[in-house]
Amino acid sequence: MENLENSSDSKETVSPLNNSGFKLNSTISHRDGKNMGFVLVHAGAGYHSESKAKEYKHVCKRACQKAVDRLRAGGLALEAVTAALVELEDSPFTNAGTGSNLNLSGEVECDASIMDGKSLNYGAVGALSGIKNPVLVSRRLLSETQKGKLSAGRIPPCFLVGKGAEQWAISHGIPACPTEKMTTKFSLSGYKRNKRKMELAEQVETKRRIQSCGHENNSACLDTVGAVVVDWEGNVAAAVSSGGLAMKHPGRVGQAAHYGCGCWAENARDVSLYSTAVSTSGSGEHLIRTMLARECSTAMQAENAHQALLEAMQNKFISSPFLAGEDCVLGGVIVLRCCTCGEAQRSEDIQALLVEFLWSHTTESMCVGYMSAQDSKARTHISRLPPGAVAGQSLAIEGGVCRLGTASD
Amino acid sequence: MENLENSSDSKETVSPLNNSGFKLNSTISHRDGKNMGFVLVHAGAGYHSESKAKEYKHVCKRACQKAVDRLRAGGLALEAVTAALVELEDSPFTNAGTGSNLNLSGEVECDASIMDGKSLNYGAVGALSGIKNPVLVSRRLLSETQKGKLSAGRIPPCFLVGKGAEQWAISHGIPACPTEKMTTKFSLSGYKRNKRKMELAEQVETKRRIQSCGHENNSACLDTVGAVVVDWEGNVAAAVSSGGLAMKHPGRVGQAAHYGCGCWAENARDVSLYSTAVSTSGSGEHLIRTMLARECSTAMQAENAHQALLEAMQNKFISSPFLAGEDCVLGGVIVLRCCTCGEAQRSEDIQALLVEFLWSHTTESMCVGYMSAQDSKARTHISRLPPGAVAGQSLAIEGGVCRLGTASD
Repeated sequence: MENLENSSDSKETVSPLNNSGFKLNSTISHRDGKNMGFVLVHAGAGYHSESKAKEYKHVCKRACQKAVDRLRAGGLALEAVTAALVELEDSPFTNAGTGSNLNLSGEVECDASIMDGKSLNYGAVGALSGIKNPVLVSRRLLSETQKGKLSAGRIPPCFLVGKGAEQWAISHGIPACPTEKMTTKFSLSGYKRNKRKMELAEQVETKRRIQSCGHENNSACLDTVGAVVVDWEGNVAAAVSSGGLAMKHPGRVGQAAHYGCGCWAENARDVSLYSTAVSTSGSGEHLIRTMLARECSTAMQAENAHQALLEAMQNKFISSPFLAGEDCVLGGVIVLRCCTCGEAQRSEDIQALLVEFLWSHTTESMCVGYMSAQDSKARTHISRLPPGAVAGQSLAIEGGVCRLGTASD
Repeated sequence: MENLENSSDSKETVSPLNNSGFKLNSTISHRDGKNMGFVLVHAGAGYHSESKAKEYKHVCKRACQKAVDRLRAGGLALEAVTAALVELEDSPFTNAGTGSNLNLSGEVECDASIMDGKSLNYGAVGALSGIKNPVLVSRRLLSETQKGKLSAGRIPPCFLVGKGAEQWAISHGIPACPTEKMTTKFSLSGYKRNKRKMELAEQVETKRRIQSCGHENNSACLDTVGAVVVDWEGNVAAAVSSGGLAMKHPGRVGQAAHYGCGCWAENARDVSLYSTAVSTSGSGEHLIRTMLARECSTAMQAENAHQALLEAMQNKFISSPFLAGEDCVLGGVIVLRCCTCGEAQRSEDIQALLVEFLWSHTTESMCVGYMSAQDSKARTHISRLPPGAVAGQSLAIEGGVCRLGTASD
């Protein structure tokens, strides 16, 4: 259901920028209002070696394309963000869905959540095994809540975990998938390596707890995936999916299944000038305790998006009172905000959306991809901390601006 | 470990008040600074018949006493709040721990969480079976996070669910308890009654979804328990525990295990003048999507506590944009805020704490109990909506003020 008829008159509408600020691109006019929208995805904040970078960029590109395909077919943000997530989960290289980190018992247990900025509905699953695409279960939970109450006035659940979540998914027509099929050669060798490392560490440490920020353990464990989308109606949606920390305790649920922590999406309304969508990645417990997705969304109502995100990452994450004892706070966010404000409002014959997109991380690197429905292909980027910056204590922030417009005549 | 030596010079320090406002009681001086503190508990917002009311009041009274015993023995807020919760969970009448509502499969699955306002640490369990006191597992998760990283630099979990949570609890010395022992005659008969009702409803509704706000289903399902405490050092803590909705889908996790939704506690610091603690009860999904515990805590930094809670319940709950489609929003909160401000600050020889305690609910009724460490016994109260008010659309709000003081000489 691709609608590519307008691709010939598309030109690049997005411009990535460094810390220096943002630049506006010229407005693109389309007769088909539906050929509009924007997607930004991430394949995790963590440490991306050059060899891994190529694979991550590839999957981000494909995920953007899937989302844009939906947007071009008239799909709303919620559908587009789901399509991007399925693609990200299906990659054996990301720590989500197939290829997820294995837990202490060598099992795959996934977390995922999704939020619709239009209805503000939300769905999440935690510690879910046996389902290929956890995001589809959270998506289905979200749509079931929109149908009203269950029999005898029971309120439908928005968050299901474990075996119960798996049974619910299957009873709602989402196919089961044997865990073995979701385990990859890569995740299994990682598990064995981690297990040896743990055993060794436990001998050496003899139960002494350590405060370390080493890459050895973190490199493989933060590649949560996520996406944020705005559609042609100006609705935003956000989603996130994760296999969780490598060697986590069975039943551990991270930020990807925590309301306000893994993702957030809110359309503009009343007091909020901007529609905002956020998806996070990193150390789940730190992202939970700082409620980073919602904090960033709230911060995005300030005038200067770049400055607001910088301050949020610094004050609400790195220096958060909720993480006072932590000297190494690892995480990243992708953020999208949009409005029909400024120049766009003044020009009556053009229905235009101004989309600002940003990413920021305290990890060594973060892999992102982005694309507007008017672009012929996605752009991808591995963002890295500036030279000399210390992971967990410093941050990188980048982004761009994209103006989406349609002629109303 | 009760310290009752000062009980002879205690007098009643708390005064419950209606919507008209608050009244201050005179300061009580004690030579033993540790004989200070305050606890407020709830046994759920829902519908309490006169016959049930007596049992609920009894358990609230016992829970207050347990918390005060800990405070008098020099225990901090976190210990006291845990002691109150254990008592509330152990009652076969409350929907928490023993006597919890049964899920669709006839099993007990509990949610619980706890937060320490001093360290801002947090622990939670969801869909937990086979453990008598879920709050003890969340308490243990909280203390484990304070010990720093696990072997090989792994971050300790703050939220565990299902079978994994049960295994973790047992491996940390918390005794297992057969589910049968947690099932009561009352919960079993409720399950059978609900099951018949559901089957009947499903025949009648023939899959039509309904929007109802009837008591029949809600009466038995909202009796979550919780407590908020301030100790002699001025630290606050909050906790909540729930068996969840009757006939919930297995694996469904409610607000009691959701960060920011079930409970919240934050000591005063920098920008925050007041220490605040909140515990919620009601329709889990509504409390999750409105993040009610944290919203109320934030609101409590305003000057007028009563007005601030009233507005928070009205604007952030009943009329919340996150529940736009809901015409029946059922829930309740207990709130405690304290400071060493006002008159207490001016008097240099007295270390005094001003404690304001409130409860508010949109359900028919809410059962609360409260006690200061200087009181000889707890007070309990069934708060009810004003005559003619519609549950789910109106609210009741009540509270009082208590000044706790010690002579420094």
